[in-house]
Amino acid sequence: MISRKMTAMTRGGSAIRALFEEGARMAEKVGRENVYDFSLGNPNVPTPESVKDSIIAITEETDPLELHGYMSNAGYGFVREAIAQDLNARFGTNFSENNLIMTVGAAGAMNVALKTLLNPGDEVIVFSPYFLEYGNYISNFDGVLVDVPARPENGFQPSAGDLERAITERTKAVVIDNPNNPTGVVYTAETIRALAEVMERRSRELGTAIYLVSDEPYRELVYDGAQVPFLTKYYRNTLVAYSWSKSLSMPGERIGYLLVPDEAEEARTIYNAAVIANRILGYVNAPALQQRLIARCLREPADVAAYDKNRRALYDVLTGCGFDCVYPGGAYYMWMRTPTPDDQEFSDRAKKYNILVVPGRAFNCTGYVRVAYCVSHDVILRAAPGFKKLAAEYGLAKE
Amino acid sequence: MISRKMTAMTRGGSAIRALFEEGARMAEKVGRENVYDFSLGNPNVPTPESVKDSIIAITEETDPLELHGYMSNAGYGFVREAIAQDLNARFGTNFSENNLIMTVGAAGAMNVALKTLLNPGDEVIVFSPYFLEYGNYISNFDGVLVDVPARPENGFQPSAGDLERAITERTKAVVIDNPNNPTGVVYTAETIRALAEVMERRSRELGTAIYLVSDEPYRELVYDGAQVPFLTKYYRNTLVAYSWSKSLSMPGERIGYLLVPDEAEEARTIYNAAVIANRILGYVNAPALQQRLIARCLREPADVAAYDKNRRALYDVLTGCGFDCVYPGGAYYMWMRTPTPDDQEFSDRAKKYNILVVPGRAFNCTGYVRVAYCVSHDVILRAAPGFKKLAAEYGLAKE
Repeated sequence: MISRKMTAMTRGGSAIRALFEEGARMAEKVGRENVYDFSLGNPNVPTPESVKDSIIAITEETDPLELHGYMSNAGYGFVREAIAQDLNARFGTNFSENNLIMTVGAAGAMNVALKTLLNPGDEVIVFSPYFLEYGNYISNFDGVLVDVPARPENGFQPSAGDLERAITERTKAVVIDNPNNPTGVVYTAETIRALAEVMERRSRELGTAIYLVSDEPYRELVYDGAQVPFLTKYYRNTLVAYSWSKSLSMPGERIGYLLVPDEAEEARTIYNAAVIANRILGYVNAPALQQRLIARCLREPADVAAYDKNRRALYDVLTGCGFDCVYPGGAYYMWMRTPTPDDQEFSDRAKKYNILVVPGRAFNCTGYVRVAYCVSHDVILRAAPGFKKLAAEYGLAKE
Repeated sequence: MISRKMTAMTRGGSAIRALFEEGARMAEKVGRENVYDFSLGNPNVPTPESVKDSIIAITEETDPLELHGYMSNAGYGFVREAIAQDLNARFGTNFSENNLIMTVGAAGAMNVALKTLLNPGDEVIVFSPYFLEYGNYISNFDGVLVDVPARPENGFQPSAGDLERAITERTKAVVIDNPNNPTGVVYTAETIRALAEVMERRSRELGTAIYLVSDEPYRELVYDGAQVPFLTKYYRNTLVAYSWSKSLSMPGERIGYLLVPDEAEEARTIYNAAVIANRILGYVNAPALQQRLIARCLREPADVAAYDKNRRALYDVLTGCGFDCVYPGGAYYMWMRTPTPDDQEFSDRAKKYNILVVPGRAFNCTGYVRVAYCVSHDVILRAAPGFKKLAAEYGLAKE
């Protein structure tokens, strides 16, 4: 009755969703406070006070018909210009409103980018582990996902050599997610330079254009002074998908942008097509009130201190139990090797201690779990004995 | 460089967009107040005061992390339940939250519905003149639009006989838009019954399911006490796409719903798939703040008095000039026959009098123009002399 693509989707289910329901069942049995839910990527740092103040000020000060009316499908010019100037001040770039399209979050921006670029059968390279939704976004436009595993021995930095071997004449785009979900790894400037060199050389040799589509909802969540390279400075055919969901703790509000730099090949054609894609995919425009909100809260710093405190505590707890973790430079995820290759079995066994972690196969990478630390700090402390018992079951730590 | 589909789109341009730019050029020359712009479907009745009050109250009263956080991809249960109860009270239906998915406007709902239903090559019947964007929405999922012209002699009500002749075994859906953009016609219960009878009989004979997808952003904008039939009561395989863009004058805020009634074949499968489609199309969820806003403003009556006053005045002006118009029962559009079969030529000639109207070909129906009366009342009065001169050029009225 329904479309074949959607039939497959409804059968698949979602591992993260299943954990969410498991958590609800657990909470009924043992109480919400005794469930240690590290499965969700929902920000838990309070939304800045300026968001509240700005919504009220905007609503009080703006003529309602103007505030809630249609605008260009690309979004308000003054909002895009404010974002461009902020990027220019931070990254030494030279953007204007004409490089930005306001979108329904980064997910909206990714879909607009892929709709703009892909013909059926075009290949899109993604480094695993990756946010599994990329597969759906690529499939929306009948593209083919090509999975290039990032190597543990490289600290899960993507390898330029592996990328080179994966590029074909059908390669239309390479998607990266920096800082990375689920590994928490920040791709270094060195990594980006190596990837850019390969993409430039191969697209020249093949006579094709290979676009780098960078999904950056976690850009502001970095620790120890880490710098997230701004990719348009490293590779001209870069499109950036951004969202304020994480930095301003407002993922339900669906506000982000797609950036198309002038340096990209056929930048104006891509930009104009992306504005049309934004319209015909049914977004029409990013929500009006949220756009104005961003213009006011643009310089609000992300509050990373709480995530950083969790990051250190969780790393100490898990490595203290004998688990092997990637020490994350960004986002709010800890990527932990499971003491058995069967990450599903490990995730299932963790439930015995009311601990919920997402098996790596939910990111196309077995033998690991993702432990999200966007939780109350005391959840980490109270989960510690459970983690210790779990480790003991695998012979890692004494109880 | 960009996808073939999008290349075609960027070449096509939009007639309405071109008029918009023409209007801007005119405004520079003769002053904004001397441009009689009847081309845009942007609501001009003030947004109700309760929208402003509600946004402020919600923002002041709700914990920000909860207010702006993720919720189910279907939207908040309490918002969906409030909408269901309101529909039940108004239409004697029996919906619950489990029949509703909050969407990024009606355009989002249409895309979710079509993504859920269509396989490549599936046919979708649309009655022309129609909102041309339907063609893009259908093309997003590689469906095939089948255009069935509504007949002027039937007052642009869709004909069941014509529908019957257009149905094939590939017919997956019939899209209607009631009240209609661009004709302003309200489809009667008699029309709907006749269409339903044909769809029921033909789907039985063909052994297929034919879904009626009803796009209803103008449902509340009706005049003279007209009733817009609630379609799930007439045909069980109905999906309704709704938006508050017009009734609450907030089109920039992108808030609407998709309704899947229990009576529909495989209703649960369709509903579950539509929730996933809402996620993977990159909407993720309808904007959080706007969802809560709707729960508060649900019973706010649409202010149709101003549109009604414009409707009467414009009809008098145009028919007084000798033009032939469909007297609209709903929406805020007047559908006017051009005194030449070349509606583009007519629209171009109207610009001489600083009048902007959209040629019917922008709705796949030549020989007509759409005159949108969501304008200040005095624009209609001040445009009257221009319309008269225009009519005189075609020998319809004396100057």
